[in-house]
Amino acid sequence: MASIHAQGSQPGPAARAKCPPHSDRAGVLKQFAQSASLRGGSLSPLLTQIRDTPLLWLLSLVPVLFVAKAFKPEAHAVLFLLSVAAIVPLAALMSHATESVASKTSDAVGGLLNATLGNLTELIIALTALRAGEYVLVKASIAGAIVANTLFMLGASLLLGGLKHHVQEYNRSTARFQAGLLFVATIALLVPSLESGANAAAAGSQFTQVLSLGLAILLVISYVLGMLFSLKTHREVFASATRDHEDQTPWPIALALVTLAGVTVLIAMVSEIFVESVQHAAETFGMTAAFVGFIVVALVGAAAEMASAFAAARKNRLDLSVGIALGSASQIALFVAPVLVLLSYCIGPTPLNLQFWPAATVMMLIASLTATLVTNGGRSAWFLGVLLLDVYLIFAMTLYLMPPPV
Amino acid sequence: MASIHAQGSQPGPAARAKCPPHSDRAGVLKQFAQSASLRGGSLSPLLTQIRDTPLLWLLSLVPVLFVAKAFKPEAHAVLFLLSVAAIVPLAALMSHATESVASKTSDAVGGLLNATLGNLTELIIALTALRAGEYVLVKASIAGAIVANTLFMLGASLLLGGLKHHVQEYNRSTARFQAGLLFVATIALLVPSLESGANAAAAGSQFTQVLSLGLAILLVISYVLGMLFSLKTHREVFASATRDHEDQTPWPIALALVTLAGVTVLIAMVSEIFVESVQHAAETFGMTAAFVGFIVVALVGAAAEMASAFAAARKNRLDLSVGIALGSASQIALFVAPVLVLLSYCIGPTPLNLQFWPAATVMMLIASLTATLVTNGGRSAWFLGVLLLDVYLIFAMTLYLMPPPV
Amino acid sequence: MASIHAQGSQPGPAARAKCPPHSDRAGVLKQFAQSASLRGGSLSPLLTQIRDTPLLWLLSLVPVLFVAKAFKPEAHAVLFLLSVAAIVPLAALMSHATESVASKTSDAVGGLLNATLGNLTELIIALTALRAGEYVLVKASIAGAIVANTLFMLGASLLLGGLKHHVQEYNRSTARFQAGLLFVATIALLVPSLESGANAAAAGSQFTQVLSLGLAILLVISYVLGMLFSLKTHREVFASATRDHEDQTPWPIALALVTLAGVTVLIAMVSEIFVESVQHAAETFGMTAAFVGFIVVALVGAAAEMASAFAAARKNRLDLSVGIALGSASQIALFVAPVLVLLSYCIGPTPLNLQFWPAATVMMLIASLTATLVTNGGRSAWFLGVLLLDVYLIFAMTLYLMPPPV
Repeated sequence: MASIHAQGSQPGPAARAKCPPHSDRAGVLKQFAQSASLRGGSLSPLLTQIRDTPLLWLLSLVPVLFVAKAFKPEAHAVLFLLSVAAIVPLAALMSHATESVASKTSDAVGGLLNATLGNLTELIIALTALRAGEYVLVKASIAGAIVANTLFMLGASLLLGGLKHHVQEYNRSTARFQAGLLFVATIALLVPSLESGANAAAAGSQFTQVLSLGLAILLVISYVLGMLFSLKTHREVFASATRDHEDQTPWPIALALVTLAGVTVLIAMVSEIFVESVQHAAETFGMTAAFVGFIVVALVGAAAEMASAFAAARKNRLDLSVGIALGSASQIALFVAPVLVLLSYCIGPTPLNLQFWPAATVMMLIASLTATLVTNGGRSAWFLGVLLLDVYLIFAMTLYLMPPPV
Repeated sequence: MASIHAQGSQPGPAARAKCPPHSDRAGVLKQFAQSASLRGGSLSPLLTQIRDTPLLWLLSLVPVLFVAKAFKPEAHAVLFLLSVAAIVPLAALMSHATESVASKTSDAVGGLLNATLGNLTELIIALTALRAGEYVLVKASIAGAIVANTLFMLGASLLLGGLKHHVQEYNRSTARFQAGLLFVATIALLVPSLESGANAAAAGSQFTQVLSLGLAILLVISYVLGMLFSLKTHREVFASATRDHEDQTPWPIALALVTLAGVTVLIAMVSEIFVESVQHAAETFGMTAAFVGFIVVALVGAAAEMASAFAAARKNRLDLSVGIALGSASQIALFVAPVLVLLSYCIGPTPLNLQFWPAATVMMLIASLTATLVTNGGRSAWFLGVLLLDVYLIFAMTLYLMPPPV
Repeated sequence: MASIHAQGSQPGPAARAKCPPHSDRAGVLKQFAQSASLRGGSLSPLLTQIRDTPLLWLLSLVPVLFVAKAFKPEAHAVLFLLSVAAIVPLAALMSHATESVASKTSDAVGGLLNATLGNLTELIIALTALRAGEYVLVKASIAGAIVANTLFMLGASLLLGGLKHHVQEYNRSTARFQAGLLFVATIALLVPSLESGANAAAAGSQFTQVLSLGLAILLVISYVLGMLFSLKTHREVFASATRDHEDQTPWPIALALVTLAGVTVLIAMVSEIFVESVQHAAETFGMTAAFVGFIVVALVGAAAEMASAFAAARKNRLDLSVGIALGSASQIALFVAPVLVLLSYCIGPTPLNLQFWPAATVMMLIASLTATLVTNGGRSAWFLGVLLLDVYLIFAMTLYLMPPPV
């Protein structure tokens, strides 16, 4: 009943295609436009999608941003706000384009694309910051993405789902399995920080750098093994954790690829303005670079995935929400972070290491542990979401109030 | 069978009221006294209760304490021991009075009263210490209450229950849910300590104070939401975790209210002597203020709840024991601690912050994590209780041996 | 079916003894040799076992080592490698001798022997290091044994089992119970380090020493209670976690006792050469004493148990693997460590304390917590093993790269 109702309330074009006699005039028109575009590879599905999704109307801010940058390059606060607002719809568009490409390829390649490009927005922003030598911002955005996924995305999913459904049950075996992966992945990422945090006197920068490089290589190998695991040998375990496509029509492959390329370039350009303005804007708003990277960048970069996770929670499909939240956090630890370290040898002014400042280390550990313990029961109710959001709010408050790290 | 046996072994007056023909002479007499008091609101039920409960005979130490204080105000060691011994029966009496008031009101109001007044003894002692400016004692009693509830109360319940029953099973979903709440609540409370512990150089006292205030407000809001949750929207989850009333007769409302008021005043007066004498007594016994607050105050303040938890464990109702232990610990974190911070702006010499000294932080984290992991399985046997008590003993030993924090 | 197949694929002499008519010629011969040795108590079963087990061929290195020591006492690197290679087969032999003695005694005494002598190799090496005053090596081998058991032994078991079986399920109640014991045991062991780590300013060496002694006494008492628990009151919980004897023929008691005594002496002698050479060899290979103790000694000492755990995992008996890994780690914390502290008052130059250096503390905590969380689900697949091994590799890499602790 639930899924029928969900489809009924928001009938996608695919559903209509199956039952043309019942569709209304607008439906016929839309269907026609769609089939035309499917044949001609035109931009219609993209435009239709933009028209139907209020979030994507924010795309109009992208040209506004570029104009503002050209005419008012010193208005950092405005440029910062505009770039934040412009990244959100671009990330949503990229997410849809990625899924469209994935749906046209074989399952294995599609899964690979989805897994690799899932955190592409975060990766592009971090790469831009890396090239600009903004290492605090890079590390803050890695740490912040893990914390935002495990506390904010999970907490808000539990709260939103719990407000609609009394008690939500989900597959606890799968959740525990994924939480186990997340926990071990986070630990692996944190070892250099734990060591040097615990043994500061003995840790030199040479030691940290070599360890970070070795760790990055190990994590990337683990990531490749992890793909083999989740896409090949044990795909059924992760079956329910792939994103939910039923409400969305995949685009034609040519359009999807062009969109993917175009949006990637646009995100890179917007990220550049964002990274340039963030330092000044942070001063204007009284925020530290750590706060901006940890909270703002992380939430902005994960906006598209959050929308999916929240929608799934409302439909009482917490398996999906938990899978997106924990899977995305694992991916940051196992893929995004080591790739940044490896690329820093090519594009950054100096190599990036994986030594986080102590507060970030503690927060990542707590976030990962909390997610593991909370998803352990396989049951949820709204107050659990409130408590997870509490911890996130407290972290945000702490970072906002904390003097910049020395 | 178990509950029939439990009733049979200690038949309360309520049970007898249902079957007057079978009651013995004493029962008739008691029943008469009771019904008389119900009509007249006399003190009989209170006196009956005191007569039947050996623990309450310690109430006789209350006047002894006041006399001793008047004539020997410098005998700190004696005053300390007397005040400790006097608080235990007062706390038990307060607990019974609270439950009597709660049982006369609507379920929601009753639950609210029980939840709010459940840790009233701890709150009064801490407030007295706060007014006297004994901040180490206040913080130690908060930290100690969480550790005592999660390690000592839970450990002794598992041990006592396990000595009587081979393997005890309990509802693991409920236990996990409550343990999740406890873990997140403890984490929320600990964030200022974790931050400043991890980043001591960057943490100023101004920062800690503002953070503590913001945190206190957030925790109180969470506590109100938590009440809404456990008393209104999800009361069935906590159904078995409310205290067990079947063995005790509720008092008439007037008597209960008068007792509540009287006992509150007495505990406040005894606490004052306790807080005054503790510093000197600690020196006499070679104990630090941290040890006294962490171990002695916490055990004394929780004595009444421990009696309930242990009795439930012996009756193979571990759900109840686990609920009391974890629920009480959560309440300290979500209610008592923030209320103390907020009230410190009115009654203390300087505001109280939530920055605990490092050893206390580590102990609270370990205690909360241990409780979460141990209750995770839904099964218990006596050796698990031994190990929990081990950790508590080691903490106590450490605090006893440790030089006072600088 | 599974156990029938396991027996069928590798029929032990015991199985053949039941069905002599079907046994082949070699079987008859072996059976004859065996029954002869059973009557005469000769060395035949020992020699047979050595002949059939390639690992035991390494025993030939024991005399080589002694000869090398006599003629080339300054060839530290060679002596180090030879002594490492000689300890492995001796540990395997000791393990088999212990089990043979255990199988001849009553169940309770046998369990006691198995439990106490299970980590005898580790104990002998640590005692030799203790007598030589190599405290860093002693502590490193304690910490390393816990980490190697919980990360390497468990991880490799999950990986090896997972490569053969798609998803492995095991009794999650038992695993959780054992993981709970391990976690609390580790915490108990770590308290002095946590305290002094967290509160370094307040911790004096006198305080640490007294605390370590008190803790050791408490842990030994807990260990005795734990034996009572696992061998007497709750032996059925640990039933599946005892080692698997079905593939191995017990030796006659006299041979087993003589082997036990002889191997103990040999391990002690080899350990002496090992401890002497390790300092110099470490320098030659560019390793710190911490790395050698933490990684090399721990893996060497646990080799025999690892062989059992891996074999069980391949046979889809993960209960057994998890039991061996977690049980052995608990035993190090509850028995080996406190015994070393107590004996250090008799045999070491100065008493041993239980204060580990910060990195070791963090690693033990993480290892114990990871094992608890990973075994929590009762399900495993190969990638979980990869991730556990990742964490172990990262620890090893960190210790290898890290400058020696100050």
